[in-house]
Amino acid sequence: MYYVNPNIKKLYRTSYSESRKNYLRLDMNENPEGLPTPFFEKVMNSITPEYVATYPEMASLIGRLAGYLHCEPTNICLTNGSDDAIRLLFEVFGEPGKKVVSVSPSFEMYAVYINMYGMLHSPVPYNEKFEVSLDDILATVDSDTGIVVLLNPNSPVGASWTEMEVRAVIEKARENNAVVVIDEAYYYFNPTTFLHVVNEYDNVMVFRTFSKMLSIAGCRVGFIISNDQLISEIKKACSTYPVNCFAIRFAEMLLEDTKIIDDLIEIEKHGRDYLLSQLEQYNYKYHFNYGNYVLIKSNKKPKEIFEALKQRNILIKTYHAPILSDWIRVTTGSIDTMRIFWEQFKEVDQVNDVICT
Amino acid sequence: MYYVNPNIKKLYRTSYSESRKNYLRLDMNENPEGLPTPFFEKVMNSITPEYVATYPEMASLIGRLAGYLHCEPTNICLTNGSDDAIRLLFEVFGEPGKKVVSVSPSFEMYAVYINMYGMLHSPVPYNEKFEVSLDDILATVDSDTGIVVLLNPNSPVGASWTEMEVRAVIEKARENNAVVVIDEAYYYFNPTTFLHVVNEYDNVMVFRTFSKMLSIAGCRVGFIISNDQLISEIKKACSTYPVNCFAIRFAEMLLEDTKIIDDLIEIEKHGRDYLLSQLEQYNYKYHFNYGNYVLIKSNKKPKEIFEALKQRNILIKTYHAPILSDWIRVTTGSIDTMRIFWEQFKEVDQVNDVICT
Repeated sequence: MYYVNPNIKKLYRTSYSESRKNYLRLDMNENPEGLPTPFFEKVMNSITPEYVATYPEMASLIGRLAGYLHCEPTNICLTNGSDDAIRLLFEVFGEPGKKVVSVSPSFEMYAVYINMYGMLHSPVPYNEKFEVSLDDILATVDSDTGIVVLLNPNSPVGASWTEMEVRAVIEKARENNAVVVIDEAYYYFNPTTFLHVVNEYDNVMVFRTFSKMLSIAGCRVGFIISNDQLISEIKKACSTYPVNCFAIRFAEMLLEDTKIIDDLIEIEKHGRDYLLSQLEQYNYKYHFNYGNYVLIKSNKKPKEIFEALKQRNILIKTYHAPILSDWIRVTTGSIDTMRIFWEQFKEVDQVNDVICT
Repeated sequence: MYYVNPNIKKLYRTSYSESRKNYLRLDMNENPEGLPTPFFEKVMNSITPEYVATYPEMASLIGRLAGYLHCEPTNICLTNGSDDAIRLLFEVFGEPGKKVVSVSPSFEMYAVYINMYGMLHSPVPYNEKFEVSLDDILATVDSDTGIVVLLNPNSPVGASWTEMEVRAVIEKARENNAVVVIDEAYYYFNPTTFLHVVNEYDNVMVFRTFSKMLSIAGCRVGFIISNDQLISEIKKACSTYPVNCFAIRFAEMLLEDTKIIDDLIEIEKHGRDYLLSQLEQYNYKYHFNYGNYVLIKSNKKPKEIFEALKQRNILIKTYHAPILSDWIRVTTGSIDTMRIFWEQFKEVDQVNDVICT
């Protein structure tokens, strides 16, 4: 019998086989509407058969990103979405048998790669108030630790981190020869960033993506920002063409037209403000932390809400983790989208308009 | 100091920083012209902002590919180009310290991944007539062998393999618990395939790509075809979204419209026939093996031809390997493209029209 990598052999992966195509998708934090049509058409019209037939070239996007982020091209590695960034993190810096410290719950793909690369997970749990203690994190980082992951802000729970907290974690990791990832997938919804620290320490990476606010999840483009030394190691393990020509063109033209980015921020903010005001008005318990998603404590069980909304062509997210088992997570989008959600949600959760208003 | 995977730490990767944008690209075996405009526009017009904002769904393309290839969807894993397929091969089936047997010279990325995954290369060399002996390959496959790679046809040299040869290699590999990859990147230019053997043996994979004949190298889409068991192991190691939404839509619509594929085959064939007839007429030594590329023995040194053609905005490929150091490789395309190449090549290689015609 042929050899199979033992970590992969024992790995269990779930897959979503059902299409989300005909639903209003409020389950995975994409922008439900997508880019404004005039901008979208401008990008599409710039693309020729010859461009699509040619192996993608990343230099111009990397140059533009470096200008936008005020860093050098050598500080950037483009990836096939954040998923690819996470894989590269483990491939390059994941020492088998060492620990990965992260808050829990958090983005599920980290746990998949922890297992795939033979590492061990040391999760630091949130309490029932969705708080996590810095001291708990610092106490968990020790000489067995290889990687520390901070999501800023964390999804689905947890506020963003302060400068003091992040520096304390980086320094503790550094003392223990561990690298630190600050995953800023939800940057723009929460414009605090730790980009400025990547050149101050030798062990820090920031991950960003064009999938969330920037509305091109289908394109698959993310990037890692770090010091030259870390980036040069990552690039050695990277595919020759991690990012396709459409992702490159869309990303370049988004960075060229920052008015589009400002508009996207405004559209989501209006929709989210509307949803939060409705939740307040109807006395819902909710938890919001600067991402394009809100946790809501529904009257009915989350699974029932999920099924009833699905019947009405709306997808939301529910959880198995005990701390989240009473909550649904809803992606926020434009005010029109949030109105559709709210009207349907009110009905399925049987909110009584007369009593509540 | 933080840990770096020792195989990656010592890896040397080259990168092409110069843009190929303003050249006639006959160096990397893409289709120099790209897809016919009416088809291209039909695909582009079917794509909406909402589609691009959504995480890609692969099921419909996999279903369509299964129909096209007469296999089951469970026999297919989509990849971010063939590069990703090669990486997955090593990630899943690459036992560190074991040997990889392949002919030499061959596609360079295999050697990169051999080093990245801590394997050893056992190359089986071509002789000066561009022949390689089956017996040499069989003798090299032994109990230390983990992976055998056959390119069918091989690039840049070597004809395609016969059924007898391929079965002999598979059986020898199987006796030694090794897996076999048949890389059919140049299928369509050489419509012999070993797809039919993947369900006959437990240790065989076929790799295909949409980058060459199918003219969407910029999109990044390849795929692995194998038995259910091998595919299910590969899928466990695969990214959640390896392939982007544009690649999916282009690939789906290409498979729907096989007239386009037939036209692409015809266009390339006419161009190639023209080039070969010119080479014959001018008494050039050339070597052609059913791919969209021809090896030509130029009068001047390959490096000189490369530089002179580059001055005229044409890119071709040259080699360091001694067996290829006297040859240039030229990608074939439409007759118009081949005429442009030929006129310039004749001038830079100083062919004398009066003497030769």
